[in-house]
Amino acid sequence: MQRDATIQKAHGSGGHYTHDLIRNLFGRYFDNAPLKQYGDSAVLDKLQGRLVFTTDSHVVKPLFFPGGDIGKLAVTGTVNDLAVAGAKPLWLSCGMIIEEGFSIATLEQIVKSMRQAADSAGVYIVTGDTKVVGHGEADGIYISTAGVGELPEGLDLTPEKIAPGDCVLVSGFIGDHEAAIIKARHSFKMEMEIESDCAAVHELTARLVSNIPSLRIMRDPTRGGLATTLNEFVFERPFGIRIFEDRIPVRDVVKGICEPLGYEPWYLANEGKIVVITGRDEAQKVLDILQEHPLGRDAVLIGEVVAEPRGRVLLHTLIGTDRILDMLSGTMLPRIC
Amino acid sequence: MQRDATIQKAHGSGGHYTHDLIRNLFGRYFDNAPLKQYGDSAVLDKLQGRLVFTTDSHVVKPLFFPGGDIGKLAVTGTVNDLAVAGAKPLWLSCGMIIEEGFSIATLEQIVKSMRQAADSAGVYIVTGDTKVVGHGEADGIYISTAGVGELPEGLDLTPEKIAPGDCVLVSGFIGDHEAAIIKARHSFKMEMEIESDCAAVHELTARLVSNIPSLRIMRDPTRGGLATTLNEFVFERPFGIRIFEDRIPVRDVVKGICEPLGYEPWYLANEGKIVVITGRDEAQKVLDILQEHPLGRDAVLIGEVVAEPRGRVLLHTLIGTDRILDMLSGTMLPRIC
Repeated sequence: MQRDATIQKAHGSGGHYTHDLIRNLFGRYFDNAPLKQYGDSAVLDKLQGRLVFTTDSHVVKPLFFPGGDIGKLAVTGTVNDLAVAGAKPLWLSCGMIIEEGFSIATLEQIVKSMRQAADSAGVYIVTGDTKVVGHGEADGIYISTAGVGELPEGLDLTPEKIAPGDCVLVSGFIGDHEAAIIKARHSFKMEMEIESDCAAVHELTARLVSNIPSLRIMRDPTRGGLATTLNEFVFERPFGIRIFEDRIPVRDVVKGICEPLGYEPWYLANEGKIVVITGRDEAQKVLDILQEHPLGRDAVLIGEVVAEPRGRVLLHTLIGTDRILDMLSGTMLPRIC
Repeated sequence: MQRDATIQKAHGSGGHYTHDLIRNLFGRYFDNAPLKQYGDSAVLDKLQGRLVFTTDSHVVKPLFFPGGDIGKLAVTGTVNDLAVAGAKPLWLSCGMIIEEGFSIATLEQIVKSMRQAADSAGVYIVTGDTKVVGHGEADGIYISTAGVGELPEGLDLTPEKIAPGDCVLVSGFIGDHEAAIIKARHSFKMEMEIESDCAAVHELTARLVSNIPSLRIMRDPTRGGLATTLNEFVFERPFGIRIFEDRIPVRDVVKGICEPLGYEPWYLANEGKIVVITGRDEAQKVLDILQEHPLGRDAVLIGEVVAEPRGRVLLHTLIGTDRILDMLSGTMLPRIC
């Protein structure tokens, strides 16, 4: 594997070059027994619990940004989708679409980062596929990951159990990921640094699953941000959610990035945060559990489930009014994840 | 959902447009209970057997070709990877990367085709993700599918059991898929028609798994063709494979497409064929089982496992010589699947 070389169409042909790429790059870094069967699929263990299955395609631009890169994002994004469903993340697949001429050294950096992220999350990348498209038919590299996890016996996290009086919590500062991407894409004259929050939240979710019987639902507020995630919770449901602007944790640097663009931080994507709805009696316990963990240190209770208005999210603003917070409408920044 | 409209960046934003696309297009066509939980992951049943996991990214050009389209290919390709591992294909994920400006009517055709292919294969598309990239950042649409299947108790299809004397069989005419793509991409002056063999082979593989105790290994010879698949079987193994040119089933039209391009049919991709290695005593039974099924009607025994040369595939040619058949080297046609 020549590291000063670039990806050629032959790397996607299925022949010698593909074989070399698989054995000497993916095999070497991802390095685990099911992958090294080198079949077109991975034969894995029998699961004890119910199976949870998810997928994400990643097209983030730039490929490397403060706090992460497309590889780390691809792994943590898929791990997080499994984790917030209450599952223990186990195995990931990795499908790469690479533009001809892409640097193999850069690909190696990305693959290395995927392995590190997989190690942190306790998962294995067990199967994959590589396609090469021509110049101008992709923008460098796109990575699609799918993930399989196992649900603990008896766990049932569904919106059906949510009821007025329940509490809404968030595990920390919102908007960091998208703000970091915006800053990396545009040349902001700003001294303050901002890093993506890109991280696997499986430890937070596992602790909540084990300790909070009244846990209703968890979700990672990625594209569309906190506001869109809350709207998904209430969509066509017989309750609403009311959150308090003065409680929502937003860093000054994120506010500073939002302001000139007319963005609101609750529409910015996060990649290492969770939103949790829980019974009121256990809200403090949830807060304690989250705050004990480095990724939940800045967790806060931001609002509550209300009987009216049904299907709506209300923002209680700093000036004391309630306004309806809709899902994200139209586009903000494309290719943030 | 306006069907005369095109995909906008907002369809990938995670907000209203994405929500609309998921509920009114993917939800409507894929239509199954786990998908309609509309979480970021699908909660599925407990499996009885061992889990098999696979993924493929699809970048085929053109998107529609004789015998199939990118949607059908994405589903059958992933189903087949599970099937040849001996697994019962169960659930698929679907990650789409769509270029801004792509026709929603065309997307609907593709999604409809995916559903039909899923129905034929007895699988459900239970979870997905959609990303939109700018003009010139993709070529229409790329689809990454991952699949989960269940392995029957006690089944162990690994190259370790392959031994000299075993027989090598193929389920029908080779090269049809890639020949159809070549013909669709170039303007061949040729009256004969050729269709891709794109089909799910799960019924063939299930019958072999149930009835052939000496079944060693199965594989679908996609990119790199029959020659590359056979080379993967022998790679670093203490045996070789010898196949006979006069037994390999190749249609005249495929030969006619290969000849002016200098291609050999055993390097052409197939999307509905299987290669099988089995104990000699059961070779006839394998042939009978394959030939009973429409997809295996033209199955033949093409060769045998030999003690020497180790790690090599030999082609016994029409003129009576033996030549080494290597993996595909370099590129043939890119973006065939």
